[in-house]
Parts: sequence; C-alpha cells; structure tokens
Amino acid sequence: MDRVSVERVYNFGSGPAAIPVEVLEKAKGELTNWHNAAGMSVMEMSHRGAEFTKIAADAERDLRTLLAIPGNYKVLFLQGGASMHFAAVPMNLLRGMKKADYVNTGEWSKKAIAEAKKFCEVNVVASSEDKNFTYAPKQSTWKLSADAAYVHYCSNETIGGVEFQWTPETGKVPLVSDMSSHILSRPVEVSKYGCIYAGAQKNIGPAGLVVVIVREDLIGNVLPGTPTVLDYKKMAEADSMINTPPTFAVYLAGLTFQWLLERGGLAAVEKVNVRKAKLLYDYIDSQDFYSNPIAKEDRSRMNVPFRLRDEKLDAKFLEQAEARGLSQLKGHRSVGGMRASIYNALPYEGVEALVGYMQEFARANG
Amino acid sequence: MDRVSVERVYNFGSGPAAIPVEVLEKAKGELTNWHNAAGMSVMEMSHRGAEFTKIAADAERDLRTLLAIPGNYKVLFLQGGASMHFAAVPMNLLRGMKKADYVNTGEWSKKAIAEAKKFCEVNVVASSEDKNFTYAPKQSTWKLSADAAYVHYCSNETIGGVEFQWTPETGKVPLVSDMSSHILSRPVEVSKYGCIYAGAQKNIGPAGLVVVIVREDLIGNVLPGTPTVLDYKKMAEADSMINTPPTFAVYLAGLTFQWLLERGGLAAVEKVNVRKAKLLYDYIDSQDFYSNPIAKEDRSRMNVPFRLRDEKLDAKFLEQAEARGLSQLKGHRSVGGMRASIYNALPYEGVEALVGYMQEFARANG
Repeated sequence: MDRVSVERVYNFGSGPAAIPVEVLEKAKGELTNWHNAAGMSVMEMSHRGAEFTKIAADAERDLRTLLAIPGNYKVLFLQGGASMHFAAVPMNLLRGMKKADYVNTGEWSKKAIAEAKKFCEVNVVASSEDKNFTYAPKQSTWKLSADAAYVHYCSNETIGGVEFQWTPETGKVPLVSDMSSHILSRPVEVSKYGCIYAGAQKNIGPAGLVVVIVREDLIGNVLPGTPTVLDYKKMAEADSMINTPPTFAVYLAGLTFQWLLERGGLAAVEKVNVRKAKLLYDYIDSQDFYSNPIAKEDRSRMNVPFRLRDEKLDAKFLEQAEARGLSQLKGHRSVGGMRASIYNALPYEGVEALVGYMQEFARANG
Repeated sequence: MDRVSVERVYNFGSGPAAIPVEVLEKAKGELTNWHNAAGMSVMEMSHRGAEFTKIAADAERDLRTLLAIPGNYKVLFLQGGASMHFAAVPMNLLRGMKKADYVNTGEWSKKAIAEAKKFCEVNVVASSEDKNFTYAPKQSTWKLSADAAYVHYCSNETIGGVEFQWTPETGKVPLVSDMSSHILSRPVEVSKYGCIYAGAQKNIGPAGLVVVIVREDLIGNVLPGTPTVLDYKKMAEADSMINTPPTFAVYLAGLTFQWLLERGGLAAVEKVNVRKAKLLYDYIDSQDFYSNPIAKEDRSRMNVPFRLRDEKLDAKFLEQAEARGLSQLKGHRSVGGMRASIYNALPYEGVEALVGYMQEFARANG
C-alpha cells in the first residue's frame, strides 16, 4: 500500500505525542493564511495584535472551562517545559521559607527534587523507591513537615506508569503537582492545589509550551535571581506576555481545548480513557507473555509500560509493530521494554489494534 | 477580490514576523505526515528518535554553514526567547567575576541591563540615551572595564531601528551580542564574539526558540541557582536535549536555513537586504512627509521606523495600508509612528509596494 496523503499511524509516543488529527487538519488548512482572511500564518502575527490576543484569551477561557478553574487561580502560558519549572516552582513558591516537601515516585519526581535542592532544603515525605517505583505511597505513610512552603508530587509518572488516582490532603500547606502527562485526561479539583503545571507535549499541544495554574495569593514573592519571565506574578499581570509567547503552540493548544469541549469535556473524555486503559491492562493481566509491574490501583491510564517475557524478542516486536503502523512503542531508555502512551489523541481503535497485534505476536512467538 | 487560498499580505511585523512562504508551504504539505512517510507530524515525533535527531542535527549543520561558525563554538537550540537569556547570559558567563559591561542603545539594551543587575554589577560603558537612542556610540567613546566578565550589546535595536554596522573590539574580554532582530541578515565574524544569542521570531522561525552560539571555553561555571535547562554547558553536552526541545520550531528553523542556503547564503541575502533598505531610506530622505530620526550610518537594514509629518494621519495611513495588504506597520507602543520591519522573508517587491503606497498617500494627504 502506498504511504501517501494523510495516512497516519497510531502513535504511542510518550511525548512529543499524538495530536488529534482534526486539530492538525485545521492548522494545516490555515497554515499560510489564518481564517482565510489574515493573509498570514498565526506564526507570523504580532502577539500583541487583536487576532492573537483573542486566540490566547480564547485558549485560556476554554482551559478554564475544561478544568473548572476557580477565579482566584491564574492561568499562565509559559516556556521551558516542566523541567524549567522544576526550578521556577521553588523560585516562586518558597515565599521566604526554607523547606519544601517532595514525594518521590520515579524519574520525574527525582528530577524535580534534584532541581529544588538548588533552592531549599528538600524533605522527601514519601517514596516508592523501595519497590522500584511500582506504586503510589499511601497518604497515611507521608511524613509532612509543618514548616514546608509546599508539598510537591508528580501525579502521573510518564516513565514508570504510576498515576495517583486520589488527591493528597496537605492541610494548609499548598499542594503542587507536575501533571504533564495526564492533565486533561480526567477532571481535576483545582481548588485542592496551590499550583498545577504541565508541559504541553502530551495532552495539550506541541513541545515548547508549559501551562501553569497557580493560586493568586501564593505569588509575588520570588527568590532573588529569578528571571523576570519566570516570575509567575509578573507574568500573570502581563497575560503571559512580558516577552513573546510561543504563539503557534498556544494556538494549537487552543484548538485542542476546543476539540476536547466538542467531545463533551473532561468527564466524557475520562470515560473513553478508562475504557482504553481497561482494554489494554485486562489483556496484559489475562496472559503471561506480557507483564506490567505496577500495583493495580496505581496504574496510569495514560502510560502503560509492559515487558515481554523474553526480552530477546523486543526488537522483533517493535519492528513488526512499526510495519503495522503501531508507532513509538519502545520503552524509556532507563527502564527498557515497551510503553504504550495512550493519551487523549490516541483513539480507542488504536488500543484495539495494539491488543490485536500483541495477541497475534504472542501466538506466533509464545 | 475573494481573500481565499494562499493570498498573502506583505507582513512588516517586527516579530513574530514574516516566514518565507516556501517554508510555510513545505511545512503545510507535511503537517499531518512528515515526508509522506512518518505517518505523523514532526510535532508528534519523539525528540530522541532517529527522524527528529536528524532534523535537529541538519538544522545545526546548516546554521553552522550559513554563519561559518568555528568548531570551538557550541550551537544551542533553547527556550524562553532572548528575554530569558538576558538572565541566562550572566548566569553562564560571569564565571566567578562580579562585573559586566553593557552598552545602552535602546529598549532592548535597557531590558538586558535591568536583568543583568540581578546578578552582578553592571557598568554602562556607552549610551546613546542623550540623543533618544538615535545612534550607535562610537567605539572610541566606550569606557570598558578591565575586570568585566564580558561586554554586552544589542547589535540591532528592533524598536529604535539602530544597527551596528561594525563589530566592537573588546580585547580579551568576551563580546556578547543580542542579535535577535538581524541574525542571518548578513555575514557575521563569529570568532569576534564570546556569545551570540537570538530569539527566533524575526529571521529564524516561530516564537519559542532561541539560538545561542557560545565559545566552548566560556561555559561550565554557572551561578548557583541556575536552572539546569539554562546551563549552556550541560545543554551543549546533551545536544540541547536535557529536556524536550521546541521540536516544531527547530524544524521550521531548519527549513528556513535551507531556504537561505538555496538563495546563496548570507552574502547573497545581504545584497538583497541592502537593496531593500536603500529603496526605503532613499525615499524617506527624498521628501519631508515622512521622516526617520536615526543617524544615517547607524540605520538598521531590518527595522525602519518612520513618522508622518502629521501624526493625526497615522490611523488613516495604517487603515489604508492594511486594505492594500501592507500589514503590521504600526510602530512600537513605546515610540509610536510607523515601523517597517523588512526581514529576510519580506521580498524586495514588498518594499516597492510600500514605497509606492507611501508616495501615493503623501500625494493625497500632503
């Protein structure tokens, strides 16, 4: 079969990841001439002009609708990815305090902790390292500090495939979450958080954009030496436009938010995500050719790592998967094996195709 | 006339700015399926996969070719725009020293100076503020410090329209330039610089990407509290991929570099830019309905601010310009009037159309 025109694979990449084809087709249609009227691409517009100002404002409005973000939270469209904000979070949220609490559930927690240690004392309140990061530590085991500026956790570990199915309670100490790899996959009670941040390149849009949702009373007291464009308060006052924002990424994020609203919002999207994850995990649990090591109650709906019983078959599995249009299934280099990331843009039919292939491969090689 | 399909305006915006239509058409053609083969957009590819790794490596190779970058310079594709690097430059280049020299030639110099003051003593070695930033201070007037870590200047002031037509000599103290708004418009002798940085959204590609070119012996000694993703040495060691780079912006930058190479490289591109600027300045100087305040020898080839004799006509001038497809001519809010940014992607014919319109408008309203 010719691989021409819009033939598309099922893309299981962990990020940068699949973007809804409807969003890409819309962007493609107006890539040289926005709305068939501007005479230019969104990429070529002034970020301070009427058109782009509306694009950004609409994106914020739709994100607020999707997540039911309360009015006392600021929504920022910034740069640098979650990794930059591993530093920006302590820069903004220490507020004169000297200590922060962190939960350690895997690779992304560890990176956030290492970066925070540049700025303050870090108290690791709970860790799942004892079992190779295969579970989410129960709230009852957390040893919270009374004098922490905030409590940070990664609510979905992209590499390990561990997702918190519950929201921690941290009393008066603000809760901060890196939601990069499961934001917009389910409703979230934003008011339980002091700050939520997420790199765009999984469920929001292209890489290069990070969304920060922060309670307004927490910002305005940054550490000395904080770059102005990482000052959440100043950025909030400037509608994220102290400097030029990543305009094309904001535009694509806005199209993705519209796509989610058209599908009924996050409650509806969550139902599909539950079905997708159940289909894949149920199959994995039904046989012993493939396995997933994560505690069942803590399994991620978005990132499903799995291993073949015989890792010598890994290369063959990946090669035949690619030939069928099941793409980017290789696990993270730090853990090996396979990983199927099944974000919002990966349809149910994609998971069906994957499970069908896994069954066939197991029969042929089992 | 119907405004359909690829009807395009002449876009005089200062940034985000015009992108070559050939680049946009290429990106459009493969927006849902890169090379008609990947089955996905560049935006959806892993930054660590073979395809994107090659896209990024090719972009670096072509940029090295265009600017003849010596082997002892690192090329980084980072995030945050030039504004983020107003902070990252002192973070990386102070190297234990306490002072840096800055030249003040306008709005962007002032922003870089304000940010640097968070990190060190700033010695303003020369300033054109005495004449409202309408010239570039001659080298003979610069009062360089013996103990400065580096000397920083903005070699093209986007808002003021002042461009250095010569390269400062700073002896053993490394020279650092913010070249955001004229990089790739002319050849540059990179070996005269310690560091060159530039936001992409004028002559390189979409907003959200910043290119840093830095001499390798200057990096590796950052200030405490420098975010890891702003550590030039660590980023150089990781091919700018400690975290996910803004992949789509890197891809478009790469297409733009190819476009420049196809046009004969920067020596050829400079000739066109000289012709474009001459056409516009010659017209402005030939009459008194419009005026440009910049010293002739320091006028920018890229950003041409001009005023109407009667500013009450500004709104009418802009409205009729837009109606003719001459877009984004409004001057920066801090200085008013008009500004024609005539970057590489704005063709000679666009300047002809602008001058034709200016003549006609002057006749009708003079």
